[in-house]
Amino acid sequence: MIVVQKYGGTSVADTDRITRVAERVVQAKRAGHDVVVVVSAMGKTTDHLHAQAREISPIPPGRELDMLLTAGERISMALLAMAIHEHGLSAQSLTGSQAGIITDATHGKARIIDITPGRITEALAAGRIVIVAGFQGVSRDSKDVTTLGRGASDTTAVALAAALGARVCEIYTDVDGVYTADPRIVASARKLHRVSHEEMLELAANGAKVLNVRSVEYARNHGVAIHVRSSFTYTEGTWVVPQEEHMEQAIISGVAHDTGEGKLVIRRVPDKPGVAARIFTLLASNSINIDMIVQNVSEEGTTDISCTLPLDDGPRALQLLEGLREEIGAVGIDLDPGVAKVSLVGAGMKTHPGVAAAMFTALSEAGVNIEMISTSTIRISVVVRAADVEQAVRAVHERFGLGGDAPSGATQRSGGVG
Amino acid sequence: MIVVQKYGGTSVADTDRITRVAERVVQAKRAGHDVVVVVSAMGKTTDHLHAQAREISPIPPGRELDMLLTAGERISMALLAMAIHEHGLSAQSLTGSQAGIITDATHGKARIIDITPGRITEALAAGRIVIVAGFQGVSRDSKDVTTLGRGASDTTAVALAAALGARVCEIYTDVDGVYTADPRIVASARKLHRVSHEEMLELAANGAKVLNVRSVEYARNHGVAIHVRSSFTYTEGTWVVPQEEHMEQAIISGVAHDTGEGKLVIRRVPDKPGVAARIFTLLASNSINIDMIVQNVSEEGTTDISCTLPLDDGPRALQLLEGLREEIGAVGIDLDPGVAKVSLVGAGMKTHPGVAAAMFTALSEAGVNIEMISTSTIRISVVVRAADVEQAVRAVHERFGLGGDAPSGATQRSGGVG
Repeated sequence: MIVVQKYGGTSVADTDRITRVAERVVQAKRAGHDVVVVVSAMGKTTDHLHAQAREISPIPPGRELDMLLTAGERISMALLAMAIHEHGLSAQSLTGSQAGIITDATHGKARIIDITPGRITEALAAGRIVIVAGFQGVSRDSKDVTTLGRGASDTTAVALAAALGARVCEIYTDVDGVYTADPRIVASARKLHRVSHEEMLELAANGAKVLNVRSVEYARNHGVAIHVRSSFTYTEGTWVVPQEEHMEQAIISGVAHDTGEGKLVIRRVPDKPGVAARIFTLLASNSINIDMIVQNVSEEGTTDISCTLPLDDGPRALQLLEGLREEIGAVGIDLDPGVAKVSLVGAGMKTHPGVAAAMFTALSEAGVNIEMISTSTIRISVVVRAADVEQAVRAVHERFGLGGDAPSGATQRSGGVG
Repeated sequence: MIVVQKYGGTSVADTDRITRVAERVVQAKRAGHDVVVVVSAMGKTTDHLHAQAREISPIPPGRELDMLLTAGERISMALLAMAIHEHGLSAQSLTGSQAGIITDATHGKARIIDITPGRITEALAAGRIVIVAGFQGVSRDSKDVTTLGRGASDTTAVALAAALGARVCEIYTDVDGVYTADPRIVASARKLHRVSHEEMLELAANGAKVLNVRSVEYARNHGVAIHVRSSFTYTEGTWVVPQEEHMEQAIISGVAHDTGEGKLVIRRVPDKPGVAARIFTLLASNSINIDMIVQNVSEEGTTDISCTLPLDDGPRALQLLEGLREEIGAVGIDLDPGVAKVSLVGAGMKTHPGVAAAMFTALSEAGVNIEMISTSTIRISVVVRAADVEQAVRAVHERFGLGGDAPSGATQRSGGVG
């Protein structure tokens, strides 16, 4: 049975840690599995390479930036293969291209369009452990090296697990699973044993950093079971699995938060058809990813449109919209970086009324003001002042009894949604 | 007309220097040339990667070591391409594999067996500057990444110059050419304007570090003109060119020295057929490159066999030969690391008698004892104590009037060989 294991940058930060990772890999092989390992670049290597590129060019050509960055995994995978050889087992490292990770040609953000894992299956058949460079692929048309975007080694691992029909995709990281909230903020936060792909998707998309969003999406679409666990302990982590129809359902899984977004407010635009479309088409065509969008009710024929977006994209969005201001007749455009998003996620909430009301009450009692609200069937997100974020996370976490102090069955299943 | 330029590790040691290299490359392009650039890894990158590998494994598998080391040029070539883009010109980096450097499968010391530069010529036709990773290729049979050995970026450059029919292969380095002796030892050493492939081959093989031996061999076999010059100045360097029949011939080109070898003495083996063969077959089959071999005249039916070899290989050679000692009946085997080799090179010496005698006299007058002697038609090498090497080089350099103080025509052409 094939097992895919993925080790992130922290797990392979130096040669000592690589040696320890090799021990885990060897254990899995000796336990009778066919093992495919996906590795990220060591520690801060990718950041360091980015910094070198910026010393030379403010906007380096994408093809060359990808060529540069892919050196990172090349180093970690070769060193890991050597460390495995030290145990007397045979290991073979493969670049994204050699492993058959075929992508489109969007340098820096390429999407996987096919997996042709011929060299992997050959190597497995020959009894070897296969080490694959995460984060990278090769463009089908130009045959150039591509990268899949920040944190995309998770995606590489999940995509390989799907293509190889692996039993599980183990994602090794520096925390021991997915928690009901960030344990650095909420002392009583509890590790989740099991979470559905849909819930994990909402958690990841709303600030939980443990898994890359696209990898969860890929896992959901291909039914891949992910086991998120620590590379430093042997404790069971969190399983991310397909939603089972008859599974006893937790109402709430956890609270995620995100301080990496800013709020853009376009003030007093005429409340007429086409204005919002004009704004968001412009932003989208410049590859700016908008998160929440809220439009207030009309007042004297004008309305405010607010949205959240990655802080990094803020200045550029502001500049683009300033160029559009006269055309759309807006009074002003403001960027507010001092916001944070708090999200409550749970597959059970779609059948339980009152979850939103309970969340808003908890925030109000904690003295936290809500600036924006958006919901999906399994998530409620609010935008609050960044200064209030920790208080907000704690209040919501406590209100829904997610902590480890209450008996875990009770907290997960009855969740006290009022 | 195609020009191949090669920049070594010192020339691309940091992003500032890469930016300066880009300016030179852009100048060549703007002067109307099609430019192919071969780069080494930045500064001490390769050493650093080697050190990491050794932290993990005393003898790392060759395939994985090559995978690791090739990350070095990947970084420098991508950064150089970015720096060229900053000048508004288009540049494309290619790995050894993408550039069509086809090798055998000897990891760490692969030999080029073919060059299929299709992607290079396409990119040149599209008006681009092409940057090629030095030192690396791809194995024809296994499709694995290979490296060509230390300093082999020179070989990559010369091989590409040959395959592309380039006008010249410019080797940029941190010195401004080939000198009559190491200027750090001989203050009056003079830059050679022109030297034949054969002479350069002897100089490089006997300790002159400015060019890699295999690259000179390749250049000689394919008639490639090399221009060795500094990447820090615009001065003309040294041209390494095919020997021209009617060229007025310098008798002596220069003095090379090498402190990287040790002397192995196998004492008092029976003077009978097959003993030397047995010894050197064993060493060769363990990939130990022997340089000089000297066998003394027989004395009471036994003889001493001495040879020089790279210091790094000394302990292993000693160990191998100890296992052979009884079989060949040697009294003892000693390794002496405290030696140095001094070589006098000049294509003219083959038609001028007395060169050897003059060299030995000079050494004798300087009080330097000669331990071994070997000669070729255009070279005389002696092994001396390592402590005497500087004195020996100066004495020989002066004896043949190679210095810059004498009129350069006279020194080069009449050379005073007594």
